[in-house]
Amino acid sequence: MKKIGLIWGDGSSPEIMAQAKRVLDAIQDPVDPFVYTDIAMGGEAVDKYGDPLPQHELDKALAQDSVLLGAIGGPKWEGLPGPQRPEKGLLRLREGMELFANDRPAKIWPQLADASPLKKEITDKGIDFVIVRELIGGAYFGKKETKEVNGELVAVDEMPYSEHEIERIGRIGFETARKRRKKLVMVDKHNVLDTSRLWVKVFDRLKEEYPDVEYSTMFVDNAAMQIVKDPSQFDVIVTENLFGDILSDEASQITGSIGMIPSSSRGKTKNGLYEPIHGSAPDIAGQDKVNPIACILSAALMLRYGLDMEEEAARIEQAVEKVLDQGYRTADIWTEGTTLVGTKEMGDRILENL
Amino acid sequence: MKKIGLIWGDGSSPEIMAQAKRVLDAIQDPVDPFVYTDIAMGGEAVDKYGDPLPQHELDKALAQDSVLLGAIGGPKWEGLPGPQRPEKGLLRLREGMELFANDRPAKIWPQLADASPLKKEITDKGIDFVIVRELIGGAYFGKKETKEVNGELVAVDEMPYSEHEIERIGRIGFETARKRRKKLVMVDKHNVLDTSRLWVKVFDRLKEEYPDVEYSTMFVDNAAMQIVKDPSQFDVIVTENLFGDILSDEASQITGSIGMIPSSSRGKTKNGLYEPIHGSAPDIAGQDKVNPIACILSAALMLRYGLDMEEEAARIEQAVEKVLDQGYRTADIWTEGTTLVGTKEMGDRILENL
Ligand SMILES: CC(C)[C@H](C(=O)O)[C@@H](O)C(=O)O
Ligand SMILES: CC(C)[C@H](C(=O)O)[C@@H](O)C(=O)O
Repeated sequence: MKKIGLIWGDGSSPEIMAQAKRVLDAIQDPVDPFVYTDIAMGGEAVDKYGDPLPQHELDKALAQDSVLLGAIGGPKWEGLPGPQRPEKGLLRLREGMELFANDRPAKIWPQLADASPLKKEITDKGIDFVIVRELIGGAYFGKKETKEVNGELVAVDEMPYSEHEIERIGRIGFETARKRRKKLVMVDKHNVLDTSRLWVKVFDRLKEEYPDVEYSTMFVDNAAMQIVKDPSQFDVIVTENLFGDILSDEASQITGSIGMIPSSSRGKTKNGLYEPIHGSAPDIAGQDKVNPIACILSAALMLRYGLDMEEEAARIEQAVEKVLDQGYRTADIWTEGTTLVGTKEMGDRILENL
Repeated sequence: MKKIGLIWGDGSSPEIMAQAKRVLDAIQDPVDPFVYTDIAMGGEAVDKYGDPLPQHELDKALAQDSVLLGAIGGPKWEGLPGPQRPEKGLLRLREGMELFANDRPAKIWPQLADASPLKKEITDKGIDFVIVRELIGGAYFGKKETKEVNGELVAVDEMPYSEHEIERIGRIGFETARKRRKKLVMVDKHNVLDTSRLWVKVFDRLKEEYPDVEYSTMFVDNAAMQIVKDPSQFDVIVTENLFGDILSDEASQITGSIGMIPSSSRGKTKNGLYEPIHGSAPDIAGQDKVNPIACILSAALMLRYGLDMEEEAARIEQAVEKVLDQGYRTADIWTEGTTLVGTKEMGDRILENL
């Protein structure tokens, strides 16, 4: 029995989740079908429970074999105080499930190469790298305080990292590189930050265990340049939480097709969280316009990493490739000469090709 | 009497400084010439004094009307412990001179538009914005500590901001926007950081004083995307130190000609620091190859902001434009059909056009 948690999400997210679920239904073993559990997190949970992730919903997530998420948030919840904002639910889910490693691929789909904002001479060299982002440490989870000092407010965010936190994400970085082109770049700011200097120290120890992986470090400001200048140089980037947030969004942008990018967040157990990297697109909610591919590919990653169903994962990915080859495109990736389809029809086409 | 401090810098920096000084010599008032003082900072100071900014050199800098810097650092000093690294001298100079506002323009030169890594349809919409970066607060100058906790090392960088620090950079942001296209975007991460929430609070107060400026906020991860996706949307970006470091490097990269970009760092007094945003290019030191234009344009900014010599500043900028129109290029900006010149000859050409 394989237990899958479904977080339907906000805005246009339920529409992409519906297509991903159709794909999961189609690919499951009929004699041992998936057992689904709906989990409320984000805006939906705020509306229902006044809390973006009540304990009972986190408990449900913890009881699954894997969790699939669309996307959360939207203008409706913008004015709420910090702890009640949808994003807070996501941060608490990451922490509660102990998902310390977030994989964000940046890859140009040959069928969609034109969509990149970068020049052809750059994209022609190829873009295919992964950012392995530490997800439950650093400034996201450090102590925060705002207090009055000498008659004015002073806010402080602490950015902490401990050796074991760095080591476990470091191992994921090296292991990921080992399975790919064996090149790992650790991005930091060790000319300024103590945490970065600890990252360097731990990685200098780790690299001895992975002599087959070519290892180097790069300053975060330089990395922000190099991703635009020559993304073909990267295979695997490993970095701390906040730098990973910034660089992975930049990296997704240069592919030109954010609606295509899945991601996985994993921890010590097999129970990970799989989600598109794009947002909840509330502006097009309910219009059958949103691209379901990133969510469907997230489901594929879930099968591969969370449920040991490599073959089924590959089948889904191949179906997506075929649909792109056939020229079907949702509005976000549509170009002259291709066939515009809605969310549901994109789901239909992928199902046909399964 | 106008007192100018010259920090000759490391690597190929002395070569660009030499050209900038020739331009300053040519443009000065012969009856009231500039008085120059050489200041050692960075690698040069490490070599001479074992300290990247000894107090006597900082004192010299503080006694000037303005300071011009090339660039510092290089592989020679890479292995040194933190406090002895060249960069530490720069950070201490910024702090010592109280330079809280760093202006980093991102502008496409029409003559060099081809050099951008972005597609023509994006650069055609125009790239002309400024990043106003807070320069002496945040994680750069917060408390840092690495200590043993439960048998392992834990490092913590504090990221502090107080209301008055935010307010003074906020004012520079609004004032800068007012002198331009009147659009200010404050970049933060207020869904995660307490400091960002304090930035929002202070800016919400400030914006009432600048009703003529269109004000909005943007998350730093989104900003990293938007700079690549549609840079024409930006006029002025104001942000905290670390985000400014990352985004301004990304922004300079999309112009495709980092060797052209000057910057200014200013504080409460007129005595500011003016420098190219590029590094010290040690790999081409002594080869008469490095592009002196960013340093010469930094000298122009110094005349404009530090020495009240707007007319002379504009003359220098026009001379640079003319030389580009005439087709002269150093190696970093050379393209088919233009004339390759060395560092010195580029200086000659600019002097001719003054
Ligand atoms: C919503 C936000 C808190 C989150 C983050 O910063 O981690 C998002 O930007 C992401 O990258 O998943
Ligand atoms: C050298 C380094 C400390 C510095 C910084 O991070 O501020 C540099 O990257 C810059 O942007 O001027």
